Amino acid sequence: MRTSIATVSLSGSLTEKLTAASRAGFDGVEIFETDLLAAPLTPEEVRARCADLGLTVDLYQPLRDLEALPPDEFARALRRARHKFELARRLGTDTVLVCSSVSPHAVDDDALAAGQLSRIADAAREHGVRVAYEALAWGRHVSTYDHAWRIVEAAGHPALGTCLDSFHILSRGSDPRGIEDIPGDKIFFLQLADAPLLAMDVLQWSRHHRCFPGQGGFDVAGLLRHVLRTGYAGPLSLEVFNDVFRQSEAGPTAVDAQRSLRLLKEAAGLDTPPAPVVPTAVAFAELVTPDAAPVTAVLDALGFTRAARHRGKPVDLWQRGEARVLVNTGPGERRDGTHLAAVGLESPDPHGAARRAEALLAPVLPRRRAPGDAPLEAVAAPDGTELFFCATRRPGLPDWRADFEGTGHAPGTGGHWRVDHLSLTQPWHQFDEAVLFHRGVLGLRPQESVDVADPYGLLRSRAVTGEDGAVRIVLTVGPAPGDATAHAQHIALGTDDVVAAARRYREAGGRLLPIPANYHDDLAARHTFADGELETYRELGILYDRDEYGTFRHCYTHTVGRVFFELLQRDGGYRGYGAVNAPVRLAAQHAVRKNAVA
Amino acid sequence: MRTSIATVSLSGSLTEKLTAASRAGFDGVEIFETDLLAAPLTPEEVRARCADLGLTVDLYQPLRDLEALPPDEFARALRRARHKFELARRLGTDTVLVCSSVSPHAVDDDALAAGQLSRIADAAREHGVRVAYEALAWGRHVSTYDHAWRIVEAAGHPALGTCLDSFHILSRGSDPRGIEDIPGDKIFFLQLADAPLLAMDVLQWSRHHRCFPGQGGFDVAGLLRHVLRTGYAGPLSLEVFNDVFRQSEAGPTAVDAQRSLRLLKEAAGLDTPPAPVVPTAVAFAELVTPDAAPVTAVLDALGFTRAARHRGKPVDLWQRGEARVLVNTGPGERRDGTHLAAVGLESPDPHGAARRAEALLAPVLPRRRAPGDAPLEAVAAPDGTELFFCATRRPGLPDWRADFEGTGHAPGTGGHWRVDHLSLTQPWHQFDEAVLFHRGVLGLRPQESVDVADPYGLLRSRAVTGEDGAVRIVLTVGPAPGDATAHAQHIALGTDDVVAAARRYREAGGRLLPIPANYHDDLAARHTFADGELETYRELGILYDRDEYGTFRHCYTHTVGRVFFELLQRDGGYRGYGAVNAPVRLAAQHAVRKNAVA
Repeated sequence: MRTSIATVSLSGSLTEKLTAASRAGFDGVEIFETDLLAAPLTPEEVRARCADLGLTVDLYQPLRDLEALPPDEFARALRRARHKFELARRLGTDTVLVCSSVSPHAVDDDALAAGQLSRIADAAREHGVRVAYEALAWGRHVSTYDHAWRIVEAAGHPALGTCLDSFHILSRGSDPRGIEDIPGDKIFFLQLADAPLLAMDVLQWSRHHRCFPGQGGFDVAGLLRHVLRTGYAGPLSLEVFNDVFRQSEAGPTAVDAQRSLRLLKEAAGLDTPPAPVVPTAVAFAELVTPDAAPVTAVLDALGFTRAARHRGKPVDLWQRGEARVLVNTGPGERRDGTHLAAVGLESPDPHGAARRAEALLAPVLPRRRAPGDAPLEAVAAPDGTELFFCATRRPGLPDWRADFEGTGHAPGTGGHWRVDHLSLTQPWHQFDEAVLFHRGVLGLRPQESVDVADPYGLLRSRAVTGEDGAVRIVLTVGPAPGDATAHAQHIALGTDDVVAAARRYREAGGRLLPIPANYHDDLAARHTFADGELETYRELGILYDRDEYGTFRHCYTHTVGRVFFELLQRDGGYRGYGAVNAPVRLAAQHAVRKNAVA
Repeated sequence: MRTSIATVSLSGSLTEKLTAASRAGFDGVEIFETDLLAAPLTPEEVRARCADLGLTVDLYQPLRDLEALPPDEFARALRRARHKFELARRLGTDTVLVCSSVSPHAVDDDALAAGQLSRIADAAREHGVRVAYEALAWGRHVSTYDHAWRIVEAAGHPALGTCLDSFHILSRGSDPRGIEDIPGDKIFFLQLADAPLLAMDVLQWSRHHRCFPGQGGFDVAGLLRHVLRTGYAGPLSLEVFNDVFRQSEAGPTAVDAQRSLRLLKEAAGLDTPPAPVVPTAVAFAELVTPDAAPVTAVLDALGFTRAARHRGKPVDLWQRGEARVLVNTGPGERRDGTHLAAVGLESPDPHGAARRAEALLAPVLPRRRAPGDAPLEAVAAPDGTELFFCATRRPGLPDWRADFEGTGHAPGTGGHWRVDHLSLTQPWHQFDEAVLFHRGVLGLRPQESVDVADPYGLLRSRAVTGEDGAVRIVLTVGPAPGDATAHAQHIALGTDDVVAAARRYREAGGRLLPIPANYHDDLAARHTFADGELETYRELGILYDRDEYGTFRHCYTHTVGRVFFELLQRDGGYRGYGAVNAPVRLAAQHAVRKNAVA
């Protein structure tokens, strides 16, 4: 089915919006009135621009407050409508959206509404267009889709149909099954939007917090399946009012929008991109650094060894147990200092994983390979992190480590080390998209969103995990664009003896993040501990949490560039990430930074 | 009465918060648990630090989920409480806050709650502290202040009282008159917060959107008057959870908080700062510029003349009718380019106006005066704009123009020119405070807040006006920190013939902002005009609006530095600012800027 997007969903001038929609692969656009009024192009020029870009103009919208009016009000409204129908004709669209009235002059009289909409449709037909009548969730007398349809049905006019909008239907809690009672050829248009499940005024919710399907909490795919059963054959069009998208670059937003639609089509059975291949482990985390010494000193103190070196690039493989960290001193983006630039995801089918990512518009990264290098599939996540789909010791698949030559140092051992999770900071305006990407493209499962109080603002954090928790990525975002506290990334290393790990690190010269005594005093009030246990935690700066399943103990190294390491031990199936301790950790990191500056 | 503030209301480390509270003139603080846990200071050190800063520790908070529990849960809770009471003693406070339980284990049994709270109060007394029990608006079984009071009353324990919180009371829509039934000496603490009137989940509302009294929509002063009638003599304490304050500098936020409390005390009859002196007109707008030529060319084309020059400074007075613009080429902040740096407010009592501003913590600006200069009272608004309180032709008061020497050029005449309004962009995090400042300090009246769609984000705009509309200031804020579209300021010049004004400006070589033809096509559909009228608007880029009172016509000059001028004509008592046309104007300005760059 054809895909379309309303210009109001994207940022910028009308020409910027059209270009972005075209580049992201949309087939058409809805032209939003304000975007046209503010544009220096005539309607004919807009039409020609769209044609040049391979876009059809699928809808002009919205006309408001046209129906169920007293006679003289209606006469004025009809005059206004005729003007807009002529405009629509000039734009080259065949459909104009009419929203249910919010006017205080509107009368609660369905027969009057049907009669006047018929006359509006007569006028539309004279200009070669048709009218799609939509119930606004906050319409004065008509606020549900079935009510709008009853009026359209009563009017029985060939140039009058209904427009369905998933936000208006689902935000009201209407049952979408009733959609199947509408003949598909009377559904003139379908607008799709999702939204987070917020208990708030529906008008404000709609105007500021809509999002692309899959980013929110509505079952948009379920609604779409009902619409498809009617035989609807028009475009799937995104109409999203969102404060953040309004200020984000149109190009990436349009790509996110198109990805959302592709996932929606897959969920509704309209499309079959390559199936998800869920990663089974973190094969490696790759740090890019202009100066390897500070970070390799940390790795060395943690008991990692430099086990191998890439045959063709300045990349070392540091390893302890199953935890692998690549240290890349090649020509990366040096201005970022030491940062987490890539993640190796262990995959049962690296090629299939990459093909799915490609089909869902993740940029495929060109690999500069030397002759003999193992093929390595890689794509970019929305935040720019490179994701490698790779295999380690997997029969029938090339091992990514074939490009590395052993140094003769055996990997560090003891304590069953592994990467427990990675924490990746996201650009401020792409947090919801990052969650959708990791869910839809990689097949990971989003957990609850968590707010964390940093001393200088509120952070938002959401984990995405594999089915069995073998892969855990924590996506975080700072309180506002440009906020520095949002820039830290971290690698959390799981072990079965965090106390031994912390002690070894410190004895080898590593600096552990100091935790205030008040924190451990509070632990004593909240929990009971074995003799000496709490004293050990105090000494090493170990934080503690407990859930209904088990316990969690964790501590932190100091930060190098943008990166620090967490050492942790999960016992008894603890499921979280110690979020309750995050404010204390963040405050301690701020204090260290200030002391370093002072 | 003593003033206090909860540390959670301010950004930063605990020591930064304490310093900010002290500098802003607070008498005490509430220590919020997380702030203490994350601090490297021992409780005794916090106490000493507070004493050094002249602050008392008025409260430690919060203890949660203590009452109406099954026996073994209660035993654990009591152990935890004892620890916190000892901590409170070490901090040097005599009061600990206990919130009504949200625990799923809590039982709906007031007698049990009263009995357990008595035992909690026994424990508190052993440590020399007392318990203030507060109903959370989302408490599991206790969510209203009168219910919490009934339990406290039933317990009848001398170390158990209640804590009232204006947010919890007013967000639930409880009638605050019932407060007068509580004996004042059983109200152990009073927390004050305001909030915008939002229809949303009360927990989210409370955690993210509280604000200082006067910044929101609650009648906090009314509530305070009820509390005062009980004989309550404890501190007035601000407890505000706000996402924006969390990331704003603690110093200015604390000053805003203290100003809010002073205004609240005035409203409740507790304090009598100098009375408001409402300005009666805009005497002048002052532009600071590194290069006068571009802006004086615009003024010249508008028909202003350089009527006078300051005797001691490089400041020219340009005038047309009653509209006066000062052009200052002295050593200002040159990095800002041409900007609106100061506003002269015509005042019936400049000295009184300045004394009120000073009492309400507006920084009083030192005036570098030459001998013989007229005394000129000035303070800084929250955004740094200098506000001069001055008199023009007012018997018994020195005229600010006495410092200027006439150039011999008569002011421009014709068209009854005046400053209709000034539009001032506010720092992202101080918008609500700017509104409170202009209302509370200057005595202007806030109008409705309006959202305006810029092509690159949503702007928020709110006008503050004098009683008769003689002074109008439009405060605006961009979509996010650092957004460039938020930086423009403008001077709107009212005339009784905007067409003549625009034509003269253009004929004198001025560039009017071009408005797309689509806009005027749309006007034709919506309104009827006299013959030729619309053609004139098209020709000159004049925008049009109508409200129930009258009509509004306006157009724009090009932008110099951060500043542009609006020419407008209000007829028939039109009350707005043409907000409906703002998206078209903003898009046109973006287009001009892009063309200039291209």
